[in-house]
Amino acid sequence: MTFASIAIIGLGLQGGSIGLAIREYLPHARTTGYDLSAEHRARAGQRQLVDTVCDTAADAVRDADLVIFCVPPGVMGFAAEQVRDALPANALVSDVGSSKQAIAEALTAALPDHTVIPAHPVAGTENSGPDAGFAHLFRNRWCIVTPPDKVDMVKLSQLVAFWEALGANVEIMTPEHHDLVLAVTSHLPHLIAYTIVGTASDLEDVTQGEVIKYSAGGFRDFTRIAASDPTMWRDVFLSNKAAVLTMLQRFTEDLTALQRAIRVGDGEQLFEHFARTRAIRRSIIEEGQDDARPDFGRGDHDGAKATQTSP
Amino acid sequence: MTFASIAIIGLGLQGGSIGLAIREYLPHARTTGYDLSAEHRARAGQRQLVDTVCDTAADAVRDADLVIFCVPPGVMGFAAEQVRDALPANALVSDVGSSKQAIAEALTAALPDHTVIPAHPVAGTENSGPDAGFAHLFRNRWCIVTPPDKVDMVKLSQLVAFWEALGANVEIMTPEHHDLVLAVTSHLPHLIAYTIVGTASDLEDVTQGEVIKYSAGGFRDFTRIAASDPTMWRDVFLSNKAAVLTMLQRFTEDLTALQRAIRVGDGEQLFEHFARTRAIRRSIIEEGQDDARPDFGRGDHDGAKATQTSP
Repeated sequence: MTFASIAIIGLGLQGGSIGLAIREYLPHARTTGYDLSAEHRARAGQRQLVDTVCDTAADAVRDADLVIFCVPPGVMGFAAEQVRDALPANALVSDVGSSKQAIAEALTAALPDHTVIPAHPVAGTENSGPDAGFAHLFRNRWCIVTPPDKVDMVKLSQLVAFWEALGANVEIMTPEHHDLVLAVTSHLPHLIAYTIVGTASDLEDVTQGEVIKYSAGGFRDFTRIAASDPTMWRDVFLSNKAAVLTMLQRFTEDLTALQRAIRVGDGEQLFEHFARTRAIRRSIIEEGQDDARPDFGRGDHDGAKATQTSP
Repeated sequence: MTFASIAIIGLGLQGGSIGLAIREYLPHARTTGYDLSAEHRARAGQRQLVDTVCDTAADAVRDADLVIFCVPPGVMGFAAEQVRDALPANALVSDVGSSKQAIAEALTAALPDHTVIPAHPVAGTENSGPDAGFAHLFRNRWCIVTPPDKVDMVKLSQLVAFWEALGANVEIMTPEHHDLVLAVTSHLPHLIAYTIVGTASDLEDVTQGEVIKYSAGGFRDFTRIAASDPTMWRDVFLSNKAAVLTMLQRFTEDLTALQRAIRVGDGEQLFEHFARTRAIRRSIIEEGQDDARPDFGRGDHDGAKATQTSP
């Protein structure tokens, strides 16, 4: 038994991709959608991200047996309140947010009489908005589902089957552990990328033109994730504050150790550290989570520029 | 007038790519090569990275009018000493190292009677060794040439023409400014990538398996450059210590400011910072220094897994 009518609130990269994936992989399910931006709603209609784009969130959920909130973490509660009076009592409430404890609390507070099972597909690109989505975004990616302690097992199975149908591999986790894992695999990398891109653009003795020109030395890799949606990322950091600050503290300690090794000229420590990190890359490639080709395969497409990085 | 006989000392990613590029773009030039590792010399011979692989560095340079040192920064001086007695008096000495002041000093000290014009092609991949090179590595990339104050202008023009023939765009710069620019566009990004990959693999409450599994959230981008050659990078940091430590200080200040914004919940500051960094990405793509496709175009090749990053 699967969902017959799915409402998607927020039609950006995630919401749009879910809509397109449902049409491809679950063609019998009806989809409705809503976005706060009238411009995005119009564009979502043109791209047919969902079967029906509605003018209010309430209209979108009126017949839904699953509603997925695909809005920035900071407005999950607000979006949920908008649909409270229209949402059928037996509808399952879920989301795709990158932090899970804060969102679970916000959704549950706004919809106390509904079953809420948060989820987080670990998939995305640096693009955002209604033009960014595509049907195979979730294929071969992990989707982490974080049910509350007491959960409707039927609905949980339905949600797992839904994400598997969209091509994802599902993992069940507590929200607390999710937030810790993602703090290191996603939130900290984004924070650091945002920082270094800012640092590089604020120097007096190196111009921004030079930074751009010589970015193939490694810098350009950071600019990709630092081009991600600023609203969403602001909310991610604010909603997963404790875990992010913990991981940041660890990172800073390690950076200070390497800084000291450079300052005192401890080549052995540097070498040992740098040799160790190679193995992780290999494992990520072996597990199918990245492209084995040099430079992520950049430049292999038609009209390819030679595209490289480092040193 | 171009070079007739080019010796390449060190047959890894850079040296091998130069050899292959010469065969493709300067087919009339003869190439000789040497690598300290017998295994690499054998492999270089199989791949025909140069016309003749020699058993000693001295043999490789005996008839050269250009010798390019493609060894880690820390052994440039040592490699130069090996060829001193065999190198023709009028031969031009150059290199491809990622730091320029320290290498210029080392090469000049070892070969005081020769013309030394250091250079740095800002091109590479995370791979290293004699299997890593390819002929179009330098195409549409920048090569920074850092001549000394008093320079043989004929030889300088020859070197510029040489790199342009290999497909690179050449820029002339002082070694001091080079080291500052590369500290931010290349060295700092590598140091940070090495750090975060180390941090992520040393946690107690998140397993390494989890880090690998959920790396598509952003972390995997960092693992690519943290898979670069550890010997070379150790030497880069030690040989460009001052500029790296300066840039690291700036980065740490900026990171501390964002950390504070997260701690006190200053969403406005976070948003402003995150919105600003998007523009840099656009400029890098406009200047042809990166691939505009989401995720660097990962996953667009045959048998593609859906490959994404963030959030």
